[in-house]
Amino acid sequence: MKLVIGNRAYSSWSMRGWLALKASGQEFEELVVPLFDKDWDAKRKGNEFAAGGGKVPVLWDGDTVIWDSLAIIESCAEAHGRERYWPEDDAARGMARSMAAEMHSSFMALRAELPMNVRRRVDDHHLSDAVKTDIERILTIWAQARARYGSGGDYLFGQWSAVDMMFAPVVTRFVTYMVPLPPFAIAYAEAVIHHPHVVEWIELAQDEPWVIEAYEPEGSK
Amino acid sequence: MKLVIGNRAYSSWSMRGWLALKASGQEFEELVVPLFDKDWDAKRKGNEFAAGGGKVPVLWDGDTVIWDSLAIIESCAEAHGRERYWPEDDAARGMARSMAAEMHSSFMALRAELPMNVRRRVDDHHLSDAVKTDIERILTIWAQARARYGSGGDYLFGQWSAVDMMFAPVVTRFVTYMVPLPPFAIAYAEAVIHHPHVVEWIELAQDEPWVIEAYEPEGSK
Repeated sequence: MKLVIGNRAYSSWSMRGWLALKASGQEFEELVVPLFDKDWDAKRKGNEFAAGGGKVPVLWDGDTVIWDSLAIIESCAEAHGRERYWPEDDAARGMARSMAAEMHSSFMALRAELPMNVRRRVDDHHLSDAVKTDIERILTIWAQARARYGSGGDYLFGQWSAVDMMFAPVVTRFVTYMVPLPPFAIAYAEAVIHHPHVVEWIELAQDEPWVIEAYEPEGSK
Repeated sequence: MKLVIGNRAYSSWSMRGWLALKASGQEFEELVVPLFDKDWDAKRKGNEFAAGGGKVPVLWDGDTVIWDSLAIIESCAEAHGRERYWPEDDAARGMARSMAAEMHSSFMALRAELPMNVRRRVDDHHLSDAVKTDIERILTIWAQARARYGSGGDYLFGQWSAVDMMFAPVVTRFVTYMVPLPPFAIAYAEAVIHHPHVVEWIELAQDEPWVIEAYEPEGSK
């Protein structure tokens, strides 16, 4: 298996796909394709990276090509064990799938105005009303999951699941932009940041040579 | 089982969830919650419809609540038979899941500028460059699916699948806005429009009493 990803510092969807593949327990190769690298842009057009319209992540597994993080999650769950990704309880799993899908399709203001950058802290970032609405919704569904199904561990549904993989880049944004959080969310964010796969991703991101202005928030340090 | 949906004429995500549930072969109740109805807006805030943040569709099945169309598809595939939703071949299924996920997260210009309205035809609609880019990408992945995996039938992967359910509202937009299509896409669009579930949805939409200005494209007839 081979996973094509973007810059670790900036590419939140790559992080989700990578966390999903790590959870499979399988060995895999990685190929980092820096975002906004003109040489790579040219290469992408004519070759295998075009599969996903030039987007990342892309999972190559024999003849199978999967170019979306949520599709990678469901495919890995099928191939390597659903229990690595989704809660066992039907109602919990229904809620988990809904939350993962909502992350996949929503929170546009948060995604646009607080770009992921796991190498930065920004202590004076202004949150727009649209971003505040996104954050309020995220905290609401986090709280519901933790209250209903979180008793077996520190993550949204107790054990580490696909929902945590989907929201991990949001946690890094909350850290980067120092978003004020209620105590339950601080505890959850700390659990995510200390998950060994997240730790590994962030550590590897520190050493990447590329710095892309579009992903460097003002006032960052 | 009960499915909460929005107006059939306008709510493309409701259509996807409803097509998914129809494909299960199970009986289910329906509850139509008109979009932008102030009485309903007030009721939604305090009751069960709040589960999905007031969005539709929402599937209620015993204790299980699922508030996203892609999550409904995966849950139905698990409960009622994967073969009703996804191709059997691994590589085909990986591509199918990627395409369904891309529909779920993308094509914002198409979704914003060509609102679904299965009761209308618009013969002079201007397509922006952003919409043209979305259409080009959709036709590219449709063509790839049809060429690689479509030989067993008229749909993207031969037989009717979750990918067709996800793209059915796009097909109705191509019809409504009379988007010029290549021959293979015309044939595919006709197959979708004549699928019995799609026919049923569009017929039921004709009799809905509500007319909402925001979903009525200029120049419509």
